[in-house]
Amino acid sequence: MNIIEIIERKRDGKELTCEELAFFVRAYTEDEIPDYQAAAFLMAFYLRGASWKETFYLTESMVKSGQLMDLSSLPGLKIDKHSTGGVGDKLSLTALPLAAAAGLPIAKMSGRGLGHTGGTLDKLESVPGMNIALTESEMIKQVGEIGLCINGQTKELVPADGKLYALRDVTATISSVPLIAASIMSKKIASGTDKILLDITVGNGAFMGTLAQGVELAQLMVQIGQNFGRETKAIVTNMDQPLGNAIGNYLELREAFSCLEGNGPEDLRQLTLHFAARMVQMAGNSKSMSEIIPELTQLIENGQALKRLHLMLEKQGGQIDSLDQKDYLEDVEQILVLAEKDGFVKTIETKSLGLFVVSLNGGRMTKDAPIDHAVGLELQVKKGMYVQRGQPLLRVYCRKNQREWVEERKYILQKHFVLNALEERSEDLILKEIGFEEVQG
Amino acid sequence: MNIIEIIERKRDGKELTCEELAFFVRAYTEDEIPDYQAAAFLMAFYLRGASWKETFYLTESMVKSGQLMDLSSLPGLKIDKHSTGGVGDKLSLTALPLAAAAGLPIAKMSGRGLGHTGGTLDKLESVPGMNIALTESEMIKQVGEIGLCINGQTKELVPADGKLYALRDVTATISSVPLIAASIMSKKIASGTDKILLDITVGNGAFMGTLAQGVELAQLMVQIGQNFGRETKAIVTNMDQPLGNAIGNYLELREAFSCLEGNGPEDLRQLTLHFAARMVQMAGNSKSMSEIIPELTQLIENGQALKRLHLMLEKQGGQIDSLDQKDYLEDVEQILVLAEKDGFVKTIETKSLGLFVVSLNGGRMTKDAPIDHAVGLELQVKKGMYVQRGQPLLRVYCRKNQREWVEERKYILQKHFVLNALEERSEDLILKEIGFEEVQG
Repeated sequence: MNIIEIIERKRDGKELTCEELAFFVRAYTEDEIPDYQAAAFLMAFYLRGASWKETFYLTESMVKSGQLMDLSSLPGLKIDKHSTGGVGDKLSLTALPLAAAAGLPIAKMSGRGLGHTGGTLDKLESVPGMNIALTESEMIKQVGEIGLCINGQTKELVPADGKLYALRDVTATISSVPLIAASIMSKKIASGTDKILLDITVGNGAFMGTLAQGVELAQLMVQIGQNFGRETKAIVTNMDQPLGNAIGNYLELREAFSCLEGNGPEDLRQLTLHFAARMVQMAGNSKSMSEIIPELTQLIENGQALKRLHLMLEKQGGQIDSLDQKDYLEDVEQILVLAEKDGFVKTIETKSLGLFVVSLNGGRMTKDAPIDHAVGLELQVKKGMYVQRGQPLLRVYCRKNQREWVEERKYILQKHFVLNALEERSEDLILKEIGFEEVQG
Repeated sequence: MNIIEIIERKRDGKELTCEELAFFVRAYTEDEIPDYQAAAFLMAFYLRGASWKETFYLTESMVKSGQLMDLSSLPGLKIDKHSTGGVGDKLSLTALPLAAAAGLPIAKMSGRGLGHTGGTLDKLESVPGMNIALTESEMIKQVGEIGLCINGQTKELVPADGKLYALRDVTATISSVPLIAASIMSKKIASGTDKILLDITVGNGAFMGTLAQGVELAQLMVQIGQNFGRETKAIVTNMDQPLGNAIGNYLELREAFSCLEGNGPEDLRQLTLHFAARMVQMAGNSKSMSEIIPELTQLIENGQALKRLHLMLEKQGGQIDSLDQKDYLEDVEQILVLAEKDGFVKTIETKSLGLFVVSLNGGRMTKDAPIDHAVGLELQVKKGMYVQRGQPLLRVYCRKNQREWVEERKYILQKHFVLNALEERSEDLILKEIGFEEVQG
């Protein structure tokens, strides 16, 4: 098979065969196809789009590029939750311990933050000593013992995705629905989970800007999962503002603790309960949401959910006690950004806030860049709230040597909050659900 | 300036600015942009197309990537002829000596063959000792002395094109009208010529398959040339069969000699006279074609045109005498391919014949690959001719160790000639002329 002919065919809008896609993925993963030919292929794929068959075969080829995890030794149905990413999205740190407390075995592989979006692994590594590089057998053993493990993806799992994603990141070919779907679903399929719950974020802090795009991606991913014989459902959520108030690794972990203590922002609490309840349903519990959610609320109130998170952190080497002693925020300066005028919060430039955290070194623009876990932002207002001139909009946590730089940018940060004289209609947190019988949205 | 943002803008169909295109060309030429980002950019450019402004700025940026030749020390108007390439196209070897014999100073930079198309430099190098790597001053000196020089392109001339072309060749981004136009015109502009006559080939042996595509490319290139203040005209010619009978480097040189001796195939003779006459007109001669062509015919009949070619070859170190002694064809086997049935020649698979010569090592698929100058093909029929079963269609010139391989492929070679019971209307050799007052087509 000839890669130039395959590029030509995709360039000319022809439908590629299973064999052609398998050849491309295998040969690129094994360094037989150079980056420049893969880049031309990806741009043609981006602009020409892909048929359902092409998307499925691409995903299948990526799954086959590495080893498959075998979770069958764990009793019960394994359910994975995956988010397409956002700003302040610490739902894996809250909903998964809660689902584990409800008796579900949770073996979750997470990723790192990239660009404006954060990553669960980085948040976990706020805890000194935390090990997110367990082997497959260590991971399975831990889930057997305490019902919960969040771990990094092993190199053996879908090596094609790591290589393709790194190339897409530098060739402006990230935001393609079939490429995103194949990237995420190949990892989920290879991770050995029985069922998959997708959180498709939509809005100015997400990769998908509009509900229509989010629904398209969600439906495609659900279809892929089903075709692999894995029950897959999706919840399209609103990412037109950060989830919760905290943005930044330690700040988000702290907010997750707070949520599991029964406190914390209302939007985070609501989605935590909703996602955990949907997972409980997918595991076979036939009760309605209005029955399950109070039971899960109980697991927060009696401390079981928080205990599960603590257990996991300790089991993976995390020194939670030192976290209290260390007090991340002792070394960190706090700067308040104030409102310049009165008004209702109409817009929050979510992606820009995420990128501001990156510029404080709280995130990264290239894979594997080191990050500072302590820096970040804390919203003092949410969309729809009324603020008065001089009232704080945002609290910045930065290092001493960043103070001057941040002070100079307060004006820009103010502009990320658009205030309006008119009250806005409040927006739904859950925009659409796909695959559930009793749906919201 | 950020290359990822430039790729994104082109990907999304935005019009790039002069500064963005200049940045891309400069930074890629200076190895600041890696091949994979340039490949993604080229594919986006290929699929999104380019506005007239973008095409012009791209050409301008490419011209500026290297040095400009200065032909101003040569007296008179300098006119360059350039073909977009075809099979059996030896027109530079006939029309340019003829134009030189008519008194025009000809300083021509040619290229090598690539893929199914041949290149003038390779044909010239059939002559032992031939030097096609003269310096700029050597080239100018030679034109001053004998009025004719055909030379290779120096590395200093449009280095961006060499690098971009090599990348396009392996990323399926060759056949883009604006990229082809920018590639050719940047070299013509940089070569210091005053006027440019383009031969835009169209048909199953050319890059442009249809007349409409050919005219589009021709008009774009004429517009680019005019915008640089260089009078540019174009002739769209028929490449639905090889030009002349010979395909292959030495065979084509031999046919060029034959043409300038007043013999040789009629189509080659006709185009040779036509192109040379158009060059004479562009140099300022106000006579009509019907007046000039008989004068040029005279220069063939009195041996002046042939003498000019001989002079050039000798001046550049070519050992013409040894060519006779060497007799390329002594070491070469000849195999005839015969017609299987009676009929009129309806189609000749021109590109396939060009690629067959490549597979005999008479051409190359990658730049700078070595080639065998002696091998090739010689048509025994042209389109529209009536052949009887058993009559030769094609003569193959190959090496002894290729005989068996060729014999096995006679059946395929037969299929490259489609015979039909009905007589076809003969096709025009010149399909359209652009920029001339008294036009054909």
